[in-house]
Amino acid sequence: MSAFTFTPMSYADFKTFWPAFQQIVAAQETYAIEPDITRDDAYRLWFISPRTTFVVKDATGGILGTYYLKANAAGPGDHVCNCGYMVADAARGKGVARAMCEHSQQQARELGFCAMQFNAVVSTNDVAVALWQRLGFAIVGTVPGAYRHAQYGDVDTHVMYKAL
Amino acid sequence: MSAFTFTPMSYADFKTFWPAFQQIVAAQETYAIEPDITRDDAYRLWFISPRTTFVVKDATGGILGTYYLKANAAGPGDHVCNCGYMVADAARGKGVARAMCEHSQQQARELGFCAMQFNAVVSTNDVAVALWQRLGFAIVGTVPGAYRHAQYGDVDTHVMYKAL
Repeated sequence: MSAFTFTPMSYADFKTFWPAFQQIVAAQETYAIEPDITRDDAYRLWFISPRTTFVVKDATGGILGTYYLKANAAGPGDHVCNCGYMVADAARGKGVARAMCEHSQQQARELGFCAMQFNAVVSTNDVAVALWQRLGFAIVGTVPGAYRHAQYGDVDTHVMYKAL
Repeated sequence: MSAFTFTPMSYADFKTFWPAFQQIVAAQETYAIEPDITRDDAYRLWFISPRTTFVVKDATGGILGTYYLKANAAGPGDHVCNCGYMVADAARGKGVARAMCEHSQQQARELGFCAMQFNAVVSTNDVAVALWQRLGFAIVGTVPGAYRHAQYGDVDTHVMYKAL
């Protein structure tokens, strides 16, 4: 197990991670985010709008990944939260996504959320789908062709859910 | 068939419909919107954020209902749209929701959307679920207990989808 350190994201962290963020959304393989989103809009999306945003760093302080946590809906739907996770390309395969998802579930429980929902897990993202399933999430819905994948064209997205 | 007239919503229309909007969200039976949302926040949610918002009026100019239309996701997900519909209590049972849904599908096609998705149709809202099904929408997912219904407690929500 690597020494992962979780801290609330700072603006400096966001600026450091921004090239990785750009790379992930430009690939158009995992996120329904504008591929040419501006840094300001990305900051609003990932940092200002959510309830909380964390970064995970290695022992040298390098940013391995980041996640946000927010209510998935308002009012009578605000007991279910939603998270998004990004892992820097150079940090893949080290268990960063798993560590972030586990950390986010603990944070969600502490904030009083009863469940976590992912709204659009791209079905061709086998690694993510399998990881979320191992961590206890179930596919509770599949939307046909809801994601225009850069390589595969229109692919399905899954709604995934876990009670906390 | 009543004489329904569809027009883009004006700010005056919004102010006229506001008491009906308040009544619908305060009931906490159908919408995941804060039950005590302010008028300004409601205006942003229903009018500013969406791509377009319509009202449907009767022959005397009375507002029977309103709907918004927007992309359900950004970037590689922006070919699927999302709509929300509200019918004034006094106008229920007149086919207003059906007329709005049909109108919104035509608008969505004209705006280039390929499909329409509802993210959280409250499962106990039998009238709506049955109507959307009659209009060609399929339940493609069900999220357990994702809505705190004012009368029934935690109830499931459906993801519903139709290719356009």
